[in-house]
Amino acid sequence: MGNESIVMRVLFVTGANRGIGLGLTVQSLERGDQVFAGCRSPEKASQLNRLQERHGDRLVVLPLDVTSESAITSAVETVQGVSDHLDILFNNAGIAGDKSPLGRLQAGEMLDTYATNAVAPFMVSQACLPLLRHGKRPVIASITSRMGSIADNGSGGWYGYRASKAALNMLNASLALDLADQGIIAVVLHPGWVRTDMGGQGANLSVDESVAGLLKVVDGLTQTDSGRFFDWRGKEIPW
Amino acid sequence: MGNESIVMRVLFVTGANRGIGLGLTVQSLERGDQVFAGCRSPEKASQLNRLQERHGDRLVVLPLDVTSESAITSAVETVQGVSDHLDILFNNAGIAGDKSPLGRLQAGEMLDTYATNAVAPFMVSQACLPLLRHGKRPVIASITSRMGSIADNGSGGWYGYRASKAALNMLNASLALDLADQGIIAVVLHPGWVRTDMGGQGANLSVDESVAGLLKVVDGLTQTDSGRFFDWRGKEIPW
Repeated sequence: MGNESIVMRVLFVTGANRGIGLGLTVQSLERGDQVFAGCRSPEKASQLNRLQERHGDRLVVLPLDVTSESAITSAVETVQGVSDHLDILFNNAGIAGDKSPLGRLQAGEMLDTYATNAVAPFMVSQACLPLLRHGKRPVIASITSRMGSIADNGSGGWYGYRASKAALNMLNASLALDLADQGIIAVVLHPGWVRTDMGGQGANLSVDESVAGLLKVVDGLTQTDSGRFFDWRGKEIPW
Repeated sequence: MGNESIVMRVLFVTGANRGIGLGLTVQSLERGDQVFAGCRSPEKASQLNRLQERHGDRLVVLPLDVTSESAITSAVETVQGVSDHLDILFNNAGIAGDKSPLGRLQAGEMLDTYATNAVAPFMVSQACLPLLRHGKRPVIASITSRMGSIADNGSGGWYGYRASKAALNMLNASLALDLADQGIIAVVLHPGWVRTDMGGQGANLSVDESVAGLLKVVDGLTQTDSGRFFDWRGKEIPW
């Protein structure tokens, strides 16, 4: 059954070599999508490389350090050489950053976290706009965190991480407004607390559960959802 | 009337050479406070220097590039040489940043705006904590903007500026929580649309009106206000 040549959707996933990014890549390939999988070092991305043996052309692994504007340009050019459009961009790459307590935080660390978690997904989104404009109900889905909700911040700390995710949420709000007349939907998604290198093994969700939820949420989005903040179950989170 | 030697409050104001920072400095001096006024180039800060001729020791003008950790350290050391405490820190220094439209934004510009508008006030706050702990009902008041409200973003654009202010709001939320048991109040304040170099001459508020409101709001703060977002009239703004 199934015709491998029928491509359902074309996705671009950043930070695709492990955790949620890898999960998004696996589940999208399994349902027949084409995936451009960006990661810092494709030569070390053993799981992506094994997936490619199985899925062939439907998986393109790209070198992508999301903090490098020239790397973003190169990656988008590679996508453009293979596909004339993108349907879904998953800005997934992110870091936890410096978890030092108040009194010991350093400016450079906070800037690095912002560069990776807020500026980078914005720059990738901006670079992908020409491809997304040709997509079918195109979506920019940026992985944020409930820890980026100011209203929900009841425990403090995590300065660099929280600030970068609040900033990402704001960038998405402006992006959604500026793209509304182009039919491109932009949302920020909280994946839940997931058993990944970042979430740790004590987390309550498996990668598979989180990713299945995220893909279902993205599949169900309409233009009125653009600019909003949902968790992996589709539940809205306050700013 | 009045005894000039009775110092009411000790303030530290960043970006004090013009606009709202200068206004905060002027009105605080006029009511008898002592002000440490940080600005990038004291030798060029002609209005501050004229104020000093009038107010003498109650005004200390400090060189302070808020994006430099060593400059922050030096400035705080200078304050410590004169005063054993601070009552109010006004993180006022800020920039509008790159206003380029979507499609033309550059990562470096966004990082610079974040460095000045979010990381810098946090680093100054962190460095001032030892002095604030000895203050009377100490307050960290960071000048943010309604444009940093994600809920209120109805017009898009202004990516770097909006994101930096949303991040500042989040940093303040964590700061307020982490400082709650030390009695230090931390708030973010929207000054209104003010006739300054940044706000332009078409703005509806004078510096004097905005500053009078901001000082009144700060005077009235209690611990339950910590972590919140008010405008110059004391009206709360959503995240």
